[in-house]
Amino acid sequence: MLRRVLCTVLFVGALPSLAEASQGHISVVLLGATGDLAKKYLWQGLFQLYMDQVSNGHSFTFHGAALTALEPGQRLMFDVLKKLACPPDESPDRCAVLKDQFLKLSQYHQLKTAENYTLLNSEIETLLRQEGLKEAGRIFYFSVPPFAYTEIARHINSSCRPPPGAWLRVVLEKPFGHDLASAQQLAAELTSFFREEEMYRVDHYLGKQAVAHILPFRDQNRQFLDPIWNRHHVERVEIVLKETVDAKGRTSFYEQYGVIRDVLQNHLTEALMFLTMELPANVSKAEDVLQSKLQAFQSLQGLEKNSAVLGQYQAYASQVQEELQKAQDYISTTPTFAGVLVHSDSLRWEGVPFLLTSGKALDERVGYVRVLFKNRAYCTQRETLRDAGYSQCKAKQIIFYIGHGTLNTPAVLVSRNLFRPVMPEGSWREAVGQSDLHIFGQSLSDYYVYRPVKERDAYSVLISNIYHGRKDFFITTENLLASWGFWTPLLDSISHQPPRLYPGGAENQHLLDFEMVRGEVAFILAEPVELLNPSRPMPSDYRAIQSKFRQRPLVSAWSEALISQLASDIEQTASRAVARSGQFHLALSGGSSPVVLFQQLARHHYAFPWKHTHIWLVDERCVPLTDTESNFFSLHSHLLQSVRVPYFNIHPMPVHLNQRLCVEEDRGTELYAKEILALVANASFDLVLLGVGTDGHTASLFPHSENGLEGAQTVVLTESPVRPHQRMSLSLPLINKARQVFVLVLGRGKHDITTLLSRVGHEPRKWPVSGVNPSSGHLVWYVDYEALLG
Amino acid sequence: MLRRVLCTVLFVGALPSLAEASQGHISVVLLGATGDLAKKYLWQGLFQLYMDQVSNGHSFTFHGAALTALEPGQRLMFDVLKKLACPPDESPDRCAVLKDQFLKLSQYHQLKTAENYTLLNSEIETLLRQEGLKEAGRIFYFSVPPFAYTEIARHINSSCRPPPGAWLRVVLEKPFGHDLASAQQLAAELTSFFREEEMYRVDHYLGKQAVAHILPFRDQNRQFLDPIWNRHHVERVEIVLKETVDAKGRTSFYEQYGVIRDVLQNHLTEALMFLTMELPANVSKAEDVLQSKLQAFQSLQGLEKNSAVLGQYQAYASQVQEELQKAQDYISTTPTFAGVLVHSDSLRWEGVPFLLTSGKALDERVGYVRVLFKNRAYCTQRETLRDAGYSQCKAKQIIFYIGHGTLNTPAVLVSRNLFRPVMPEGSWREAVGQSDLHIFGQSLSDYYVYRPVKERDAYSVLISNIYHGRKDFFITTENLLASWGFWTPLLDSISHQPPRLYPGGAENQHLLDFEMVRGEVAFILAEPVELLNPSRPMPSDYRAIQSKFRQRPLVSAWSEALISQLASDIEQTASRAVARSGQFHLALSGGSSPVVLFQQLARHHYAFPWKHTHIWLVDERCVPLTDTESNFFSLHSHLLQSVRVPYFNIHPMPVHLNQRLCVEEDRGTELYAKEILALVANASFDLVLLGVGTDGHTASLFPHSENGLEGAQTVVLTESPVRPHQRMSLSLPLINKARQVFVLVLGRGKHDITTLLSRVGHEPRKWPVSGVNPSSGHLVWYVDYEALLG
Repeated sequence: MLRRVLCTVLFVGALPSLAEASQGHISVVLLGATGDLAKKYLWQGLFQLYMDQVSNGHSFTFHGAALTALEPGQRLMFDVLKKLACPPDESPDRCAVLKDQFLKLSQYHQLKTAENYTLLNSEIETLLRQEGLKEAGRIFYFSVPPFAYTEIARHINSSCRPPPGAWLRVVLEKPFGHDLASAQQLAAELTSFFREEEMYRVDHYLGKQAVAHILPFRDQNRQFLDPIWNRHHVERVEIVLKETVDAKGRTSFYEQYGVIRDVLQNHLTEALMFLTMELPANVSKAEDVLQSKLQAFQSLQGLEKNSAVLGQYQAYASQVQEELQKAQDYISTTPTFAGVLVHSDSLRWEGVPFLLTSGKALDERVGYVRVLFKNRAYCTQRETLRDAGYSQCKAKQIIFYIGHGTLNTPAVLVSRNLFRPVMPEGSWREAVGQSDLHIFGQSLSDYYVYRPVKERDAYSVLISNIYHGRKDFFITTENLLASWGFWTPLLDSISHQPPRLYPGGAENQHLLDFEMVRGEVAFILAEPVELLNPSRPMPSDYRAIQSKFRQRPLVSAWSEALISQLASDIEQTASRAVARSGQFHLALSGGSSPVVLFQQLARHHYAFPWKHTHIWLVDERCVPLTDTESNFFSLHSHLLQSVRVPYFNIHPMPVHLNQRLCVEEDRGTELYAKEILALVANASFDLVLLGVGTDGHTASLFPHSENGLEGAQTVVLTESPVRPHQRMSLSLPLINKARQVFVLVLGRGKHDITTLLSRVGHEPRKWPVSGVNPSSGHLVWYVDYEALLG
Repeated sequence: MLRRVLCTVLFVGALPSLAEASQGHISVVLLGATGDLAKKYLWQGLFQLYMDQVSNGHSFTFHGAALTALEPGQRLMFDVLKKLACPPDESPDRCAVLKDQFLKLSQYHQLKTAENYTLLNSEIETLLRQEGLKEAGRIFYFSVPPFAYTEIARHINSSCRPPPGAWLRVVLEKPFGHDLASAQQLAAELTSFFREEEMYRVDHYLGKQAVAHILPFRDQNRQFLDPIWNRHHVERVEIVLKETVDAKGRTSFYEQYGVIRDVLQNHLTEALMFLTMELPANVSKAEDVLQSKLQAFQSLQGLEKNSAVLGQYQAYASQVQEELQKAQDYISTTPTFAGVLVHSDSLRWEGVPFLLTSGKALDERVGYVRVLFKNRAYCTQRETLRDAGYSQCKAKQIIFYIGHGTLNTPAVLVSRNLFRPVMPEGSWREAVGQSDLHIFGQSLSDYYVYRPVKERDAYSVLISNIYHGRKDFFITTENLLASWGFWTPLLDSISHQPPRLYPGGAENQHLLDFEMVRGEVAFILAEPVELLNPSRPMPSDYRAIQSKFRQRPLVSAWSEALISQLASDIEQTASRAVARSGQFHLALSGGSSPVVLFQQLARHHYAFPWKHTHIWLVDERCVPLTDTESNFFSLHSHLLQSVRVPYFNIHPMPVHLNQRLCVEEDRGTELYAKEILALVANASFDLVLLGVGTDGHTASLFPHSENGLEGAQTVVLTESPVRPHQRMSLSLPLINKARQVFVLVLGRGKHDITTLLSRVGHEPRKWPVSGVNPSSGHLVWYVDYEALLG
């Protein structure tokens, strides 16, 4: 049959003979030739490739393949092929000829067994021999479920490789795994059959014209973007794919994946990379682009649970129950909506929020990448008198409009008060008219608007890129694993988190609006239940108990309110000390409880007299100060980095002297004691902040050791039962000389020791904290409800 | 005459007798009783005071005074008094009665000679004795030009002081000086006659209802504002007073003052203080408010030439020539428009731009204080489907609308998506309607809008505050001097700067729009050549000579441009080093030249990778680090205090060990050498910044000593010919290992050594700097014109 086809082709009008003109023959094998994706996009993309390339040097044959037997498979496939369409600018005559040729160059194969593959291979070889064609390469397009990948890959590798000199390209469709581990496994399997350069992993977003133009745009507009494409000028970036459809009919897939794996991990992340990566000198060098992209991945800040808001449309639960035959009480936590806040730590982007948002059953179908610049202008003339087209006080934006939505076409929009962009004339042209449209808060006439000269389907673009070997339009293994490495911690942390339910469509109203607070995101509207049931207690509904604990004042509340009270009390103590003596000597403990306190102080106490505050350490672990385990390091990251304490007023413990840690003869304890004596009047700190361990230790004074409990030594070396064992600590006598001591106790884990301490007397050898008893100063206990009441 | 007046009053209907009910009598003396201000506002304000207070305990008499003789003065004054009006809510009958009484309580005095003052005093005393009234106090309102202040003050002090037990209040109108020096002189003079608590300096803006409500608003809305009134939430603040009138007819005053002295130094600065000051616990405690305000002044960053954009309306020049009879070629540089960018260094406001703008001959008359908050929301629902009144994606603003403009009334506006503010019911009420109005980019219906229940003229408010002794509504001497101290450096630096000319009114178009760039401001549109004399030299008219000095690259310019170039080059070196190795090791010299550089780096180089920068010292004086003579101390105050270099990356020289300075056996040099070896790859600094002494020394390597010139020792102790003699320094071999060395030479004082160095070869023993010769690194000389050309 193939012979006949080729002969026919050779006689068709102006078209060159395959054998005569061909610089080589390409065999395209489409696996899953009768599936949905193939029907909808792939055959059309292959036909487009044929139309574009038929007179450009290579000859082609197209092999549809599936598990179906030959006869029915053939019928199914040719039903699809008959519906192929030419672009509107093609003449009907030429279209008919081309389509006819394409049909004749196409054939169906059943590919099920090893023999089927061997047969396919020998058919290709035979044809090439018979036609005297040199083989250029083979494309195998995997439009099959991923569980079938390994099997097919093995067959191709063992039976269908082209001879040396011709290339092999295998095209893979997502999903590429489910998380980092599964993606690594799949990648390892594929790598055992194919070389990296042979694999083309498709993310069809990279074929969307607006997305594909991000890098060229950045490259061609370097002169305008160089000064502004950074954290000093960019206020925020939104990368958005909203859908109106829901997951009905696809829940067997969707229930396993959810919106983050389905859209954010791949499509939106790739767009993010195009925006954030450093631009290589030559953006058409695929290798440089990929390298730069990997670097951009490395700069991303890790995601945490609160980096995302999650939603699920209300009908999803019943769709899952029905389609997957789940029990009535089955609860799915699969998100169908997600808003994720991403930060990059690179110098260029530090602090700029990147918001990635996608969801099903939303109010509109639209995709865009929006870069909003900071407004640094003040317009003296009043608004109504300003030149409408120009004003620098209007928002400045660059938008890569992917499609659908108000514009209903791919587009690139640049605010007129930014710059007139350089666009490649052949492929993008300036659009005019439609000034009554509003988009992103502004009239369309406020933008330079460019549309593609020819709108092209993503798959056509991608198939053409496969043909041209443009690896930079595909996802390399490294890229894929970097992306999964980035997303997996978030996916793990939210796997049991119930998403917010939303009704779907326009009824969602403000339910899914979210906002950024301190590097996290949260829905703006409180959980809708609260709106309905106003009697539910509010989070701020607490009472600070003021009473006694161990004969000393006790402040108790829920931890958040407690920390807030403690921070205020510290500020007040500080202000009084500075008013009295011009200085405030504050000794702080390590451990995890104070971290929240440090953050509270850094973020909410702008009037704190930091300039006059001396910071001392209550205790330290014998590790270098730059070690993340160091108490000082934690204090530095959570507090000192953010406030203005003069360098001279910061007094880390000298645990690291002469390149070694806490060695007696280096006399670090003496050094610190001397420093205290030299600066703190009577060695009496204005305030010492302590914690309590579950074993009753405080500072680094541990039970069953006399070290530091009494005597003249003010700073001591001690041994902790947990690693790192060696510690330096203020002694109990020094602590008890302080004017003020606050002890902070947080969390249910401390309930037992709290209860015990409420009963025992002064027994510092058993419970060192029971020895805290300022001789002339004040002691206040700050104990949260969980520690106090269990 | 007065007796008759009082008798009449006593018989008027329901009003109480002065003598019977008065808890004391108040005499108000208005100096300049027939002047413009008195006519327009002051008499009306006094009448208002009388209406408000007539039945509240005190009795009054009102004494108008001027230089004019009795008869004509009396006539002039009563012409004004006859036109006094009651507020619209007063019944016409009561109004007539009150006005009649007021007229009868008022009389005119000529106050010219010492005798006139003595007479006034005795008349007041006589009246009080005759009526059996106890004296409560006397108010002297100076509505006269400032040159007359001293003379009048002397007379009042010597002849018109009330007896012990009664108070004296003198009310002064601006201008209060012309700059810091003149304000200090005027203040000193006044202080020799009056005690601080006797002086009430008027800034009538503090009587504007919207301005006066800023502090109460912040106080009453603490619950909403506490979390957001800071740099994390506020994007920018605009404080604006635009006028349509020009200075015609007032140029004799205006030419001496200009817009900054006329409006910004006082009115806008006071509003700024109300916004930025820390809120005292009790905002009605005048003393606490004033204290807090002074602290806020101290936090302001100093202004520089480029902190302001200046304009002058085109007709101003001819108005000045005409009114002041100036020659045709007289050029005035007095600004009639100014936009100034102010930053506060306080923790609360660091980085938030405060834009103060005012001008004459603008397109509209309006005054407002606008606080714009950062938008942190993402609204998932598309714009057209959002709830118009609520969306969190709309701008969030708080506006204190002072008056005129679109609203044409004082108002307080709070975006509905922020919070519903607490407003004092008696004095402010919610306004409804007019939703078709747009203001600051939004519909009026997007705001909660509050208007005063009763609109009150600023002077009525102030006169009432004088009566109530509310010193916090007036400008204390400290406050005044703090403000002049803040503005004077800018005024000095721009005194010869030609302002941009603008046509005036709506024609200004975008000419006066300006934008913020790196802590400075600049007009957005390039200088419109057609409006200006194009041959005028521009301030930026310098040329950076690029050539060679001692066979190495030389950069030369006027010192300001040179420093700016050097700072940029350092930033570039830093970014490259960080890109290459993740770190930047910078060694800095002491001395005075680098101070300007440090300030430049701290203020204008936000992209500097401080987080990855290590700071080393090139040399140090053997004094404690906290000594103001210490190089490190200077580096800390001018640079480290303002940027975020991690604590661990700061490496002062260990000159102070074991409580003693630079003692050999403490081995400080070895310690520092080890630290360098441990952290700096190959002990090769990325950049060493050096200076040159007039004797040819560099670092702390002095002529005629071999110390540190060669050999293996990398850090050395040296002796300086000047005190403090002992120094620690990097050695020449270590300096010459650097990748990059910049030598900065500034000022005429360095001309001789510069000339000498241009001629001599490598003679480090005579001139240590001649030994600077990086073996594989680069050396660049930065020499300003004064040092280079003499």
